[in-house]
Amino acid sequence: WKGAPLIEDKASGWSFKPRGRLQYDVGHVGSPEGIDDRGLGFSNELRRARLGVEGTIPGGFDYKFEMDFAEGDVEITDATLGYDAGAGVGFTIGQHNSFQSLEELTSSRFTSFMERAAFTDAFNFERRVGLSAAYENGPFIAQAGVFTDNIHDLDDENNSLGADARLVFAPKMGETQLHFGGSAHYRDNNDLAERGDTTRYRQRPMIHSSDTRFLATPELIVDKETSYGLEAALIHGPLHAAGEVHWLEADTLGSVAKPTFFGGYAEVGYYLTGETRGYKGGKFDRTKVLNPLSDGGIGAFQVNLRYDHLDLIDDGIVGGKQQGYQASLIWIPEDHVRFLLNYGRMNYDNAAIPALNGDRDYSVDVFGARAQIDF
Amino acid sequence: WKGAPLIEDKASGWSFKPRGRLQYDVGHVGSPEGIDDRGLGFSNELRRARLGVEGTIPGGFDYKFEMDFAEGDVEITDATLGYDAGAGVGFTIGQHNSFQSLEELTSSRFTSFMERAAFTDAFNFERRVGLSAAYENGPFIAQAGVFTDNIHDLDDENNSLGADARLVFAPKMGETQLHFGGSAHYRDNNDLAERGDTTRYRQRPMIHSSDTRFLATPELIVDKETSYGLEAALIHGPLHAAGEVHWLEADTLGSVAKPTFFGGYAEVGYYLTGETRGYKGGKFDRTKVLNPLSDGGIGAFQVNLRYDHLDLIDDGIVGGKQQGYQASLIWIPEDHVRFLLNYGRMNYDNAAIPALNGDRDYSVDVFGARAQIDF
Amino acid sequence: WKGAPLIEDKASGWSFKPRGRLQYDVGHVGSPEGIDDRGLGFSNELRRARLGVEGTIPGGFDYKFEMDFAEGDVEITDATLGYDAGAGVGFTIGQHNSFQSLEELTSSRFTSFMERAAFTDAFNFERRVGLSAAYENGPFIAQAGVFTDNIHDLDDENNSLGADARLVFAPKMGETQLHFGGSAHYRDNNDLAERGDTTRYRQRPMIHSSDTRFLATPELIVDKETSYGLEAALIHGPLHAAGEVHWLEADTLGSVAKPTFFGGYAEVGYYLTGETRGYKGGKFDRTKVLNPLSDGGIGAFQVNLRYDHLDLIDDGIVGGKQQGYQASLIWIPEDHVRFLLNYGRMNYDNAAIPALNGDRDYSVDVFGARAQIDF
Repeated sequence: WKGAPLIEDKASGWSFKPRGRLQYDVGHVGSPEGIDDRGLGFSNELRRARLGVEGTIPGGFDYKFEMDFAEGDVEITDATLGYDAGAGVGFTIGQHNSFQSLEELTSSRFTSFMERAAFTDAFNFERRVGLSAAYENGPFIAQAGVFTDNIHDLDDENNSLGADARLVFAPKMGETQLHFGGSAHYRDNNDLAERGDTTRYRQRPMIHSSDTRFLATPELIVDKETSYGLEAALIHGPLHAAGEVHWLEADTLGSVAKPTFFGGYAEVGYYLTGETRGYKGGKFDRTKVLNPLSDGGIGAFQVNLRYDHLDLIDDGIVGGKQQGYQASLIWIPEDHVRFLLNYGRMNYDNAAIPALNGDRDYSVDVFGARAQIDF
Repeated sequence: WKGAPLIEDKASGWSFKPRGRLQYDVGHVGSPEGIDDRGLGFSNELRRARLGVEGTIPGGFDYKFEMDFAEGDVEITDATLGYDAGAGVGFTIGQHNSFQSLEELTSSRFTSFMERAAFTDAFNFERRVGLSAAYENGPFIAQAGVFTDNIHDLDDENNSLGADARLVFAPKMGETQLHFGGSAHYRDNNDLAERGDTTRYRQRPMIHSSDTRFLATPELIVDKETSYGLEAALIHGPLHAAGEVHWLEADTLGSVAKPTFFGGYAEVGYYLTGETRGYKGGKFDRTKVLNPLSDGGIGAFQVNLRYDHLDLIDDGIVGGKQQGYQASLIWIPEDHVRFLLNYGRMNYDNAAIPALNGDRDYSVDVFGARAQIDF
Repeated sequence: WKGAPLIEDKASGWSFKPRGRLQYDVGHVGSPEGIDDRGLGFSNELRRARLGVEGTIPGGFDYKFEMDFAEGDVEITDATLGYDAGAGVGFTIGQHNSFQSLEELTSSRFTSFMERAAFTDAFNFERRVGLSAAYENGPFIAQAGVFTDNIHDLDDENNSLGADARLVFAPKMGETQLHFGGSAHYRDNNDLAERGDTTRYRQRPMIHSSDTRFLATPELIVDKETSYGLEAALIHGPLHAAGEVHWLEADTLGSVAKPTFFGGYAEVGYYLTGETRGYKGGKFDRTKVLNPLSDGGIGAFQVNLRYDHLDLIDDGIVGGKQQGYQASLIWIPEDHVRFLLNYGRMNYDNAAIPALNGDRDYSVDVFGARAQIDF
């Protein structure tokens, strides 16, 4: 059992497992200085509703196929065919994450806040169709691939192409797990830019159920994107700390603007009940609850604090700047069940939405709560 | 096996089961007094095509996630996270039925007609996202919850909120299962009404494959809804009888109209082959076939008669009135396979569609047939 | 294991199996004589992403429910309820293939090229909702059914109806499997034609990821369609040959045009590694790899050559003519994993897209590659 039954025939190499997750969110976004917008205030949504399968095929092959139905339509998340070549080398064909950042690669089932750091959405990280290779040797992981676009954007005129790579060094020093990483990304939108497709860099206020974005650049015709990121993390018993910085440079077409946007975060978390945050394969993983309800315990309680920074102002493009101070309380009564409570004090400069008095510098209080199961 | 394999590890509390159903309908709606409408006459459709999973997680947690794909898109039906607190008390988070009526709560796999009583659709009963509690003690069941809206209607401007409750007393008198129930419902559309979202109360002619509705109010801007229902049923050997009444009061915005609509039905059914209609947890359940084909038998045959009443005329709103006389023949060759044959003589007063001569009082003959499997 | 676990209780008659497939395509279509169209050149797509279930129910019943999510929405492929009446007789209710041709009926998991012969798409073969019967006796198979329309086109005004039948004689002569077949099809669009729904007969250039169609008739209001096809195939050890011809006559409404279009193909294939192409139930089936990677082998290699003909010119309707010369190299490292490499030299006469100089007779080079898993 891994949430759902893992059915396998180890001798032959066959295995199969259903997989899925449900996340319900409730949130409240304050209205700074009298901004009247029905998207503010109370909101609730089914954040993720995923169902899929994964399996292995003899000869070293595997697959993963999962979809998200939360929006009332079909969003294919992972749809991959993999091959394990042995000696730590693996290949993946299909739609998967392009090695963007520690926070982005960590599953939403295991993140320390309801939503990931602001830059991951603002920079439009997404899964794309591609061919990648990975190499793992002791504490070293190297990942690289070429990618076209997200399945849902792949029409026959789309010849966008990108290359992505990430390096991780994750030594274990005594009882302490360390993580150092860096990634580089390049993307050429090719005909998409020529036909006028536009890109916006923007972000919601900490929670996802509100679509009101205080941070947003105008629609830009982006020809090429280059981005770089650095990652560091530490896990020591019930304590963990993590931080990242990421720069994205956008080459616009038909304009001289070549802005570089910047985002990053620093967080620290602690399990009051003594658990240790899971870590595996260059990203955070599931936490094993020490005293679950099923053993008569109270489950795991974790508190997290985060500073979340995003700067979408450069080279004449003004998308606003965020300094978010956030707290998260997580209860994990059983290994596959989680409840989260989040609060954030979000400070904005040059926000995209002016206050009643025209002011674009203000603060917003945001609350969020989530119920989650996964299998 | 419960249609599909139930995979479980009883000792630990894990279980998992795929679930789904397919229903194909063919129908014919007569054209009263020369009404020329291509939606009348022959029609056929995939009525329901559901696929999903359900499972339990140690510690008393469970989940259910099912979708309907019949319309060519994704409609999430149930998506819940539950917790069994013991002593008959349970909690549910997520999208589920809000305890509307015996007929609405009974699964479409087990209803005695192809479609439920007219008032259940006319009053827009639907699953909604909410938090509910249930308490069961011997013949008593109490259910109550607060609900926002259907997942697919949950945008960030939607702050509608409602409360729903139901009480059931279901004593077993010797061989006779009795059922008495009542439910009350309140809903405030809040900003939805303010931004002008409208509601129609309307119903198809007995079958679902035709979209021509002889009964329909105009589009109303409904601010608040209050509804009440009473339920009664009896199962004695191969015989069952059931009846309900339900009132819905709609407060309209920007108008003085505050109509109260009324619907109800009375039905009686009999298994010619001696089976007994299933009943469990305050609603009808699966019938166990005595002599299925797989044992060399002929399966179960049931006949049902129903009077189906709906009155959408009040306080100046004229949506029409229905008096339906309906018969149903059901063949269940195996526990998870059903074939239904329905006929209805539907009498309409003040119908929404005038006949060629302007008459709005007429009768329509309706035929329907269904093939169904579920697992 | 059949790709995914087949869970069954043979004694009772219950069984259940998940099923699915993933196909990723990359392609390149040349630009003949300077045609400037972004749909030409490089393209890539998720060709198929199917997930579903199949199972059996005691008493001889079975079901199959599968959907394709590749386009980012839901396309129901098979959704059937079946009954095995014994003595080679079976019945099927629901959406399934209407016995169009050997090539169309063979699963896309097992075809010898990435795409089927041009006429199968050009003639709009598709799965439809219907009721069919099949009879199998030794080398003889007879299939016939009545069908309405594809689920996604079934609105309440749709009363289109058709009848389809196919006969197969497939004797085994020593080591040689022979296949002879013929099918006939009739369809009346009824009200669909009256309300003005149109039909186009058209085809992509060998691969599916480009939507640029060099062959296409204008939009026609088609009242009735009649089509006939003949099939022949042979499998002898690693060698196979197959060929078909198919005529389609379209009765147009409000015009005297009654064109008959024609398509067909002839192909020959050979397994360099000694395998034999699978054949079962009147269509090609899975190839069993002799030396898969999991046994230290190199998998199966097959080469195929095909001539693919399509003529959409008749009775004043000019949709163009295709003569395609195609080659396919297939690698099957394991039974459920396939990689395909395709090349085609496509000669067009009277193409729908004129070249820069107005010429409508030209040739196009097309390349395609596919990675595929199924379970």
